[in-house]
Amino acid sequence: MTVPAETFFLAPDQSGTLQQRIQQMVAEGILEGRFRAGDKLPSSRKLAAHLGVSRITVTLAYTELVADDYLTSRGRSGYFVSDTAPRQPEFVRPSGAQTDSVDWARVTGERFSGQRSYPRAQNWRSYDYPFVYGQTDPELFDHQNWRNCALRALGKRDFDVMAGDYYEHDDPMLIEYIARNILPRRGITAHPRQILLTLGAQNALWLSAQVLLNARRTAALENPCYPGLRSVLTQTRCRSVQIDVDEDGLPPEALPDDVDVVFTTASHQCPTNATMPRARRERLLALASERDFVVVEDDYEFEMSFLKAASPSLKSLDREGRVIHVGSFSKSLFPGLRLGFLVGSEPFIAEARALRATVLRHPPGHVQRTAAYFLALGHYDALVNRLHQAYRRRRMAMDEAITAQGLQVAGQGAFGGSSFWMRAPEGIDTRDLADRLAARGVLIEPGAAFFDDAQGDCPFYRLAYSSIRNARIPEGIALIAQEIAATGLR
Amino acid sequence: MTVPAETFFLAPDQSGTLQQRIQQMVAEGILEGRFRAGDKLPSSRKLAAHLGVSRITVTLAYTELVADDYLTSRGRSGYFVSDTAPRQPEFVRPSGAQTDSVDWARVTGERFSGQRSYPRAQNWRSYDYPFVYGQTDPELFDHQNWRNCALRALGKRDFDVMAGDYYEHDDPMLIEYIARNILPRRGITAHPRQILLTLGAQNALWLSAQVLLNARRTAALENPCYPGLRSVLTQTRCRSVQIDVDEDGLPPEALPDDVDVVFTTASHQCPTNATMPRARRERLLALASERDFVVVEDDYEFEMSFLKAASPSLKSLDREGRVIHVGSFSKSLFPGLRLGFLVGSEPFIAEARALRATVLRHPPGHVQRTAAYFLALGHYDALVNRLHQAYRRRRMAMDEAITAQGLQVAGQGAFGGSSFWMRAPEGIDTRDLADRLAARGVLIEPGAAFFDDAQGDCPFYRLAYSSIRNARIPEGIALIAQEIAATGLR
Repeated sequence: MTVPAETFFLAPDQSGTLQQRIQQMVAEGILEGRFRAGDKLPSSRKLAAHLGVSRITVTLAYTELVADDYLTSRGRSGYFVSDTAPRQPEFVRPSGAQTDSVDWARVTGERFSGQRSYPRAQNWRSYDYPFVYGQTDPELFDHQNWRNCALRALGKRDFDVMAGDYYEHDDPMLIEYIARNILPRRGITAHPRQILLTLGAQNALWLSAQVLLNARRTAALENPCYPGLRSVLTQTRCRSVQIDVDEDGLPPEALPDDVDVVFTTASHQCPTNATMPRARRERLLALASERDFVVVEDDYEFEMSFLKAASPSLKSLDREGRVIHVGSFSKSLFPGLRLGFLVGSEPFIAEARALRATVLRHPPGHVQRTAAYFLALGHYDALVNRLHQAYRRRRMAMDEAITAQGLQVAGQGAFGGSSFWMRAPEGIDTRDLADRLAARGVLIEPGAAFFDDAQGDCPFYRLAYSSIRNARIPEGIALIAQEIAATGLR
Repeated sequence: MTVPAETFFLAPDQSGTLQQRIQQMVAEGILEGRFRAGDKLPSSRKLAAHLGVSRITVTLAYTELVADDYLTSRGRSGYFVSDTAPRQPEFVRPSGAQTDSVDWARVTGERFSGQRSYPRAQNWRSYDYPFVYGQTDPELFDHQNWRNCALRALGKRDFDVMAGDYYEHDDPMLIEYIARNILPRRGITAHPRQILLTLGAQNALWLSAQVLLNARRTAALENPCYPGLRSVLTQTRCRSVQIDVDEDGLPPEALPDDVDVVFTTASHQCPTNATMPRARRERLLALASERDFVVVEDDYEFEMSFLKAASPSLKSLDREGRVIHVGSFSKSLFPGLRLGFLVGSEPFIAEARALRATVLRHPPGHVQRTAAYFLALGHYDALVNRLHQAYRRRRMAMDEAITAQGLQVAGQGAFGGSSFWMRAPEGIDTRDLADRLAARGVLIEPGAAFFDDAQGDCPFYRLAYSSIRNARIPEGIALIAQEIAATGLR
């Protein structure tokens, strides 16, 4: 890289001669790691013009730096950072920042970073047995067609339109496709004005909670539940009630009388994989009507029903506009895409849209258009089909290995999904188990983070099969069984 | 498109024979515009298997629909929506939604949509004289190289890595490039842990406000100021103080004693284009230290200094870690990209990062990597250079036309920028002026939205030249002068 002349400034309050100050700026850049071995310095002419000093001053500074082995001169090509230049082993504290006089703990109240953390391995790809949830398998993704769709979305005509500031709006092409093709699979018919794109399901849940809740309102959530939802609710400062789920998911009878918003993962309860039966769905909606509450349905794995046809969503049974439906392309496409959507009554969507505009405007234009092409050209359906086949095989392999090793399944999902909810023998804390297994190349998810009360031992853990190869499953499960057996508990 | 069988559901509580119910579902889909002329229906075999009915039932339903001209049969190819099928002129109220029993105004409080709106023409491209701000000119953008960088970021190796869920993290390649090359141009040295990517400057301001403010704190903002900032502050429920700017921007002496956070656009005051002189910057920082407040510097047009070298940013003068720096690629790349960044002390960035993770996780992976390549390969510098040349020419053309037509400039920016802040004769409300001009193909931005008190006539307006061709400028300015002259006021 060539270091631009514009990165140099002569601060008026600095001491030393001009030449010394130039030397110092270059040396600092090298020591701080901003300029690296082989980087080309600006020509003495350019730097002199930029700083408003004479060219000889710059040349003298460079000559000194060569003598100190910061720079090497390559004749007419100019000056370069020397391969053997002095350097600091780590990116050091920048010269300009000095001490920090702000009491940040007081100023920020550590409101956000102080929340219960949910440690996740970012380097999961380097593990041999990644039973990790929510990441996808690059081997299964239709990378070639995605790239073709991206190219089309980046073609001159689409590029210009999607490069603009859309203010609070979405790509009409993607919205239309969701309305015509995605939602009907879940039994939902919706007008484009009832749909809002979001940055994944996380963003959809956050927007819903902000619009529907405040410090005087009460939210009910499933226990255990998706940990990201707890952080979302903490920010609204609402009261919240934890409802223990059973093998049919959330029991409506357990809801308190004065609840305002109920969050549920009716189709694939997260993390237990329970599917709420039709009768219970009807009961939940009847209660919503009776007690005047709103239901937020997180249908995060809506495309992952490969064992039998998906039951219609709660939203499809909603006759009163009480259900807010959350969908996500993170599982069916990929999570780094950050695309999901909200479906709900028009006045609700209008609020969520206004809030989204203030927080982030809209998801990036070309991302939206690329997804629209991928869906419209039929690649999406083909991909979902391929995922179904692969997941069905993996689930069978999981099932066989788990049975063979005598591990205990706590919930596995009637329709499909991408994970098993497991139970270790009483007395085992799965956080410790996860640590020991990680050292042997096996990634599992300890269950504690999903529960309201994360204190004490938690025997549950989650095993996902969306990112692990079929052939690795038996050995991975065997290692888990060995590690559990080693505790002597059963 | 082929209509997937999965979009059909037999609701158990519906009346009619199976055949009638199938007919109804198809007809509704066509009437509601979900199935369109030429769409292929699922084969009778597939639909029968999906619904669990006999094939003859489906065939009979289809035959009836052919008789009613909803469908046409093309022999062995199957059934298609007829070109002359009945249809509703508009996307009608979906059949499933029925009445809405929720009192949405009460539930949502219309907290977000009720805020003062800031109308912006989404179809600005169809105007002959779009003096519109904040959109870029596709003619100037280096579309070909952007596409090449996107292709590289979508290549197999990068694709897999960037497709993952990054949780709270950013692309290290883009962060490093910002630290090494972008920030030094503004005189800032920062460690990667002091940088956070955001979905544009809007998202950066929102995150800063949420972390730094609450109902017990006071924010000072410039008046006039960027309207998006007012919506951001409304959400924090903080107290806010409006400080009238002068020709040098925000006057530090006017700040109240008990302010906690000061928002400023020191380098190009939005919308007046004033540049805060060095002495005033030092004074502002000295006051910040004395009274213990934090400064959020919105450096939204940091690359647009084409008349003389940019003055170093406030952050570069900050010796106490009191300045939060907001940057954006919306002006130098394009706004639909939704990429900006925050630079600040580590504890602050850690809070903003945790908040961002809860709200939206991270900007889409491939967007980050594409920008990283575009920057690292030097295309960015070349583009900024080209923008500078074009903007310089346009600014000259604006200057000449404005002088020739005798219009009054209220602020134009010493370093460059992309707009003029204009003043119409007293007695003209520029909202009316904008409406009349829009009818003649001229888009201007009325000034009222920038002021605290939007009541009453506002003689100010903004003329941007980032999206209008050079050749159109004289005529556009002439039309504005004509329209002002027509009022008889001067």
